[in-house]
Amino acid sequence: MPSPSSEVHSIDVSLGDRSYKIEIGTESIDTFSDSILASLGDLTHALVIADAAVENPWAMTIASSIAKQKTPSGDDIRVNLIAVPSGETSKSIGQLDTLWQWMLESSADRRSVVIAIGGGVIGDLAGFAAATFTRGIRFIQVPTTLLAMVDSSVGGKTGINLPTAKNMVGAFWQPSLVLIDTSVLSTLPDRSYISGLGEVVKYGVIDDAPFFEWLEANAGKLLDRDDNAVRYAIAESCRSKANVVGEDERETSGRRAILNYGHTFAHAIEATAGYGQVLHGEAVAIGMQMAAHLAIELELCDAELLKRQTALLKACGLPTTYAAADPDAMLPVMKRDKKVSHGNLRFVLPERIGSVTLLGDIKEPNVTKAILACC
Amino acid sequence: MPSPSSEVHSIDVSLGDRSYKIEIGTESIDTFSDSILASLGDLTHALVIADAAVENPWAMTIASSIAKQKTPSGDDIRVNLIAVPSGETSKSIGQLDTLWQWMLESSADRRSVVIAIGGGVIGDLAGFAAATFTRGIRFIQVPTTLLAMVDSSVGGKTGINLPTAKNMVGAFWQPSLVLIDTSVLSTLPDRSYISGLGEVVKYGVIDDAPFFEWLEANAGKLLDRDDNAVRYAIAESCRSKANVVGEDERETSGRRAILNYGHTFAHAIEATAGYGQVLHGEAVAIGMQMAAHLAIELELCDAELLKRQTALLKACGLPTTYAAADPDAMLPVMKRDKKVSHGNLRFVLPERIGSVTLLGDIKEPNVTKAILACC
Repeated sequence: MPSPSSEVHSIDVSLGDRSYKIEIGTESIDTFSDSILASLGDLTHALVIADAAVENPWAMTIASSIAKQKTPSGDDIRVNLIAVPSGETSKSIGQLDTLWQWMLESSADRRSVVIAIGGGVIGDLAGFAAATFTRGIRFIQVPTTLLAMVDSSVGGKTGINLPTAKNMVGAFWQPSLVLIDTSVLSTLPDRSYISGLGEVVKYGVIDDAPFFEWLEANAGKLLDRDDNAVRYAIAESCRSKANVVGEDERETSGRRAILNYGHTFAHAIEATAGYGQVLHGEAVAIGMQMAAHLAIELELCDAELLKRQTALLKACGLPTTYAAADPDAMLPVMKRDKKVSHGNLRFVLPERIGSVTLLGDIKEPNVTKAILACC
Repeated sequence: MPSPSSEVHSIDVSLGDRSYKIEIGTESIDTFSDSILASLGDLTHALVIADAAVENPWAMTIASSIAKQKTPSGDDIRVNLIAVPSGETSKSIGQLDTLWQWMLESSADRRSVVIAIGGGVIGDLAGFAAATFTRGIRFIQVPTTLLAMVDSSVGGKTGINLPTAKNMVGAFWQPSLVLIDTSVLSTLPDRSYISGLGEVVKYGVIDDAPFFEWLEANAGKLLDRDDNAVRYAIAESCRSKANVVGEDERETSGRRAILNYGHTFAHAIEATAGYGQVLHGEAVAIGMQMAAHLAIELELCDAELLKRQTALLKACGLPTTYAAADPDAMLPVMKRDKKVSHGNLRFVLPERIGSVTLLGDIKEPNVTKAILACC
């Protein structure tokens, strides 16, 4: 019987015939192959695509445990494994081409299953390769960073970058299963782990006031990487994201846009700082601060919201200001954002903790003022 | 009032929220921009992707007539046009990358619409670019070859080739509208036009005995490119394809597989002959003959079916035998076909005119015998 510390959270993402489960455990990686076979009973061929940084031991552990399994008819399950260099530059046409060729050489067919093991880069890249090989094969997400666990592994956004534009090409392609083992976070550097908390705090602000309060009470435990707290925070984050994605899978109704709270600012920060200088979750934390200032300016919310958000971000070890913020550099990037509709500046803005709204036709001076408030 | 010779056939492809219309006319190209605005009332930006061979005059005619239209709010509609070199080699990663970059440089966003003007190569390539740019934008098919009019422009299969494998990557991505003007066929060489009739005959065999009889009575008119006959043949072909695609959009139930009648043999003929040596519709004609021989061998149909099919193909000017057919070269290719399930040789085989069935576990000696029967 599992001890309380190894309790597995299971979240359903409800998307009709594209529904799937997210399973969140601790030291559960040894049982991943059981979960995979239970979900995909007809597995005959696994294509494991791993970030080079987690190839050994995580990807090898999963690959070898799948290879020991049998198909229902008693045949061996074929497993191929490829490591992809770490880092954003792997989300490229060249790497995608490499994966397509490798899949072909591995005699993959429409029944083969891609297993993506790594952070957001690997999930996006391998997911897009799965979405397009023979016009789409199934794939499983095994996120190994906190950011990927709470955000990119859920929701079906896959894709690569063009040289001058992030995530410009891709597909909506839902995974068949998301498997999370929090113990893989043990090798994640503090800065990267804390960056992931930026997205966690976001869910509290946009959708879930009780979770925000829980975070206020438990930020210390999260910083200490307490297993129970980490699993709970991941589960609540995934639940929030699953709900939003279930209501607006392809970002057509506007509902899914709330997930971009802080992100229009964040993308501009990341782009003007040079990608990788500010981590994504750090940029999101600063972006949420800018969005809260903008909301106060537009009289959408009171200063108390900003005060609580600032305190929680600080308690999580996240930045709340960005001294190098430059409105003149950031605004042109924001106007090119692919979520911008024909140059109309739109922002997700908080009304109160647990509720945000999407507002268009925001004037540039207001945006500039919000940016400067966080310098 | 339109004369009888300019009657427009309109076919509905029923796919829930992905439903669309196919409009088939003669000398209707001047009104395409009206049809586009009627279907996509919110058009603000058109990305015209044309085969270099039809850039002038067809693509330019369409592009300039769109550019003269206004958005509902009275703004100009932006139009960008790019020509892609003719031929199968354009269905490459390199060309796809070129289109993605061009779309980005054209300031395309999620409301932009791709208009693909050309044969199957352009439709597949431009459709895949549309399916993936910002994770999917709308697109319109304007097929300019008979083959594309009756087959590839309908059904939502898009994609490119890998260096050693045709159509290995892509997406199911339905067009928003298919616009066909039979008068563009006037510049199509006889051999290419006749090749398209191969797919037309296929629809009669797989799904529509009355249409097969109509073809038997009207093959001469089709060879003479009689406008009324050509429009009717295209409309009936599109109707058949639309019905099958409506029942099995993503090739999951097996129903859509009937469209591949003759195609497993055809792909092997094309691959072993060197792509382009035998045109696709010619290979399909020969492949249907091989499939009919195989069906007779397996006692699925009688010799009368083969006799009628042979006579109709000949009346259309299509080949019914292939002297260079080499089972030893073709079989390995057929076993690699991505529709083959783990090496199990499956074929769509005729039972009677208007009805086919998908049969698996076909033995190699039977396949060899069917190939040799057509040498």
